[in-house]
Amino acid sequence: MGEDERRKLIVVSNRGPVSFGRGGDGQRTAKRGGGGLVTALRSLVSHHDVTWIASAITPEDRAVAAEGLQDETARDGSPYRLRLVAHDPQAYDWYYNVVSNPTLWFLQHYLWNLAYQPNLDHGLHHAWDEGYVVVNRGFANAVLEELEREPDATVFFHDYHLYLAPRFVRDSRPDATLAHFVHIPWAQADYWRVLPAAIRAAIHDGLLANDVVGVHTQRWRRNFLRAALDIVGASVDYERGFAVYQGRTVIVGAHPISVDPEEFDELAESEAVLAAERDIEAYRTEKLILRVDRTDPSKNTIRGFRAFELYLDAHPEMHERVIMLARLDPSRQDIPEYAEYLGAIQREVRRVNDRFQREGWTPIWLEIADDFARSVATYKQFDALLVNPIFDGLNLVAKEAPLINTRDGVLILSENAGVHEELGEWALTVNPFDVAGQADAIHQALKLPAEERRRRIEGIRAHVREHDLGMWIEAQLADLDRARGTRARRGLARLRRG
Amino acid sequence: MGEDERRKLIVVSNRGPVSFGRGGDGQRTAKRGGGGLVTALRSLVSHHDVTWIASAITPEDRAVAAEGLQDETARDGSPYRLRLVAHDPQAYDWYYNVVSNPTLWFLQHYLWNLAYQPNLDHGLHHAWDEGYVVVNRGFANAVLEELEREPDATVFFHDYHLYLAPRFVRDSRPDATLAHFVHIPWAQADYWRVLPAAIRAAIHDGLLANDVVGVHTQRWRRNFLRAALDIVGASVDYERGFAVYQGRTVIVGAHPISVDPEEFDELAESEAVLAAERDIEAYRTEKLILRVDRTDPSKNTIRGFRAFELYLDAHPEMHERVIMLARLDPSRQDIPEYAEYLGAIQREVRRVNDRFQREGWTPIWLEIADDFARSVATYKQFDALLVNPIFDGLNLVAKEAPLINTRDGVLILSENAGVHEELGEWALTVNPFDVAGQADAIHQALKLPAEERRRRIEGIRAHVREHDLGMWIEAQLADLDRARGTRARRGLARLRRG
Repeated sequence: MGEDERRKLIVVSNRGPVSFGRGGDGQRTAKRGGGGLVTALRSLVSHHDVTWIASAITPEDRAVAAEGLQDETARDGSPYRLRLVAHDPQAYDWYYNVVSNPTLWFLQHYLWNLAYQPNLDHGLHHAWDEGYVVVNRGFANAVLEELEREPDATVFFHDYHLYLAPRFVRDSRPDATLAHFVHIPWAQADYWRVLPAAIRAAIHDGLLANDVVGVHTQRWRRNFLRAALDIVGASVDYERGFAVYQGRTVIVGAHPISVDPEEFDELAESEAVLAAERDIEAYRTEKLILRVDRTDPSKNTIRGFRAFELYLDAHPEMHERVIMLARLDPSRQDIPEYAEYLGAIQREVRRVNDRFQREGWTPIWLEIADDFARSVATYKQFDALLVNPIFDGLNLVAKEAPLINTRDGVLILSENAGVHEELGEWALTVNPFDVAGQADAIHQALKLPAEERRRRIEGIRAHVREHDLGMWIEAQLADLDRARGTRARRGLARLRRG
Repeated sequence: MGEDERRKLIVVSNRGPVSFGRGGDGQRTAKRGGGGLVTALRSLVSHHDVTWIASAITPEDRAVAAEGLQDETARDGSPYRLRLVAHDPQAYDWYYNVVSNPTLWFLQHYLWNLAYQPNLDHGLHHAWDEGYVVVNRGFANAVLEELEREPDATVFFHDYHLYLAPRFVRDSRPDATLAHFVHIPWAQADYWRVLPAAIRAAIHDGLLANDVVGVHTQRWRRNFLRAALDIVGASVDYERGFAVYQGRTVIVGAHPISVDPEEFDELAESEAVLAAERDIEAYRTEKLILRVDRTDPSKNTIRGFRAFELYLDAHPEMHERVIMLARLDPSRQDIPEYAEYLGAIQREVRRVNDRFQREGWTPIWLEIADDFARSVATYKQFDALLVNPIFDGLNLVAKEAPLINTRDGVLILSENAGVHEELGEWALTVNPFDVAGQADAIHQALKLPAEERRRRIEGIRAHVREHDLGMWIEAQLADLDRARGTRARRGLARLRRG
């Protein structure tokens, strides 16, 4: 199938591209979502014939779900069909708030304090059986119904909420074409073994029911293939990137997601961003170190502040001349570990500021808010961008911010961010646990000669403009074509033998 | 070299087989140490020509170190030479209390709470450069001096304190025969990456300077080979178990350590053990669940109590009829994480006992003491033995206790204990994080028919008696012979080409 051909796709993700409510006048309202995944999949809708299946989340979503398949229109005017699935609310809570977040998220980012957590009691087993399995079954049933209508459509699952659905679909439709993209890291097998044997096996078995599994990096691909070998005994080829499991071949592709550079070029000149930028310019210091994250323990915010503290200790000449601006989007505050982490962030900022601040200078600015225009304004203004996650599937901030930065700012990048495989050569690489190393990197970033800073940021920009979001989508579709080709050849061989 | 040949060995371990003091009369006293490693290596001394190099730990050890090589006699009368190395005390503290324990121990047992720990600051870098490197250099220098005296001797390093010494020896003696046994788990590469790049590379580079590296299990071997590939780019052969690195071949063997069954047969009938056993028999209940560990966070003591709590919740008919006896040897209480863990253990026991205890019945007995005779007495008395570590290099309790148990007691065994590769088929396997599963296993263990219990414990005994300590040592020496043979053939090939 050629690149330009319009395909029939069934996209499946927990959160959909639109969410419904009721206005003051009692009329149904539709709010188009942001979020990296939905943004990334928008261009699928523009170019292909898409049916999108997602969870009903609001009460009005449930009303929409009851009405069946909806004809919708994307932001750019492209038509698509939307099918919302109304899960049992209690099952959804177990699926979302017990299994997906935090269990799977914590596992895949190596975030457990294993001496004490997790405590896998009957509650977790129950949440798995009556929550995660049930909701995945619900998604699979919706997919199967859509496949009745469009038997040739390709199904494209997304992320860690849906590891079991492909198996349920495959069992009913052995010849369906199924792909899955996992947007977070793949942990190594020892860490997967924190889950009971039946659960970790079901997860790997579920993903291997696809024809194509996609991840962002070679590293997560290698981890997935090794885990598939260790946990369910798949045969694997690390070089060419596939697994053979239960007689089927599964292509495992490493395709880093990206952004739409034009979108950021436009955003950078929008009135909201320009107004926010004027505000920042009015009170920034000579040097500005920026971080932009959700308040997630995987993002390593606290060690970033400690590194800045070590930097200030070593460089009194920079007092009053530099600030660290942390723009943090509050995240998952209904999960205790997240609430605790936000508390720890606030304590750490207070502690460092208490040590150093003077009349007219507060070294760390903490902005806990969801204000994208202001974040984009800070992208333009940084001298050093600190992206130091403990582990991160990719990290889009490291691609977005350099695109529109106006000061030839330097990217300081964790070796455990997926995006390091692409951008490492133009960044200052840090170990996320090594606060001394991060303090040194801050110093180095702020001291780099202008020419060197320019060379680095231009390297990043050229890479991101060349490897944009469209390229990511084409890579997924090319893997699907390989998978279909393989299957067609196998089918032909069967016919010839027959 | 045949099995019975007497070999020249230089054994190197941080802690030696004997420690010196001063008696009341001012005379030097010698205390022969216990501890798994020293006990295991005792039979080396009986059969081979051994020079043992270890750290001077007590003040009197330092006096002995100053006197140079000592002629010593092992417990069984065998002669050996002892060389104690007096390291700089500050360097030793950094090496032992900052790098080895807890950093390497925590890493290799997956014990960090990565959102908050470790915080690798200048202190860790300094402890590495001025502690771990310096002490390893000191050990290497002592080895090099002994190799001057005995150029044909084989050097046999032990454990995680000595990862760098083999490289220092190799650099000066390219043709030396070097072996290393690692007694703890080998973590997977993502977890090794918690250490800064230079440090994790130096550790793998140091171990790969040996001719033979030994670990307890196939699993740790696979982890080591994969990490050697990922971290320093070695070529590896998982099937045959070797790595090629910097033009040299390193055999990586999986040889589980064992015990001396005769020693336990004798111990079981000793007066001290019989007296302790009478005491236990006097106040035990119908069923006794036993655990015997150090108070180390890797041992998973707290989840064991929670599992017992779930069991008591589900089985009120067993109240007053069962106790859990936890015999815990207090360990490394100068490390804050260990002191905190012991506190958490005590709180958990108090909480569970407060819920269930009645006049005449306390469900959990916590004995925090180092009293080997009493532990051996409990080995004879258990109905279920809970060995549920988070991760454990091997775990000898699982081999020792069934040897002398008198009640056909059942072994409940973590899949992450190294010994599970050998004994899993006769044990009830548990996931160490799954407290619900452990509660079920306790129930199953106490309900197993007598015949089934007997079949299982006899399987364990037959295996341990066949695979005893002598077999472990022979396996190490056979790997060394393979390494020497490979080198001899290479040398011959060079001669022929020359």
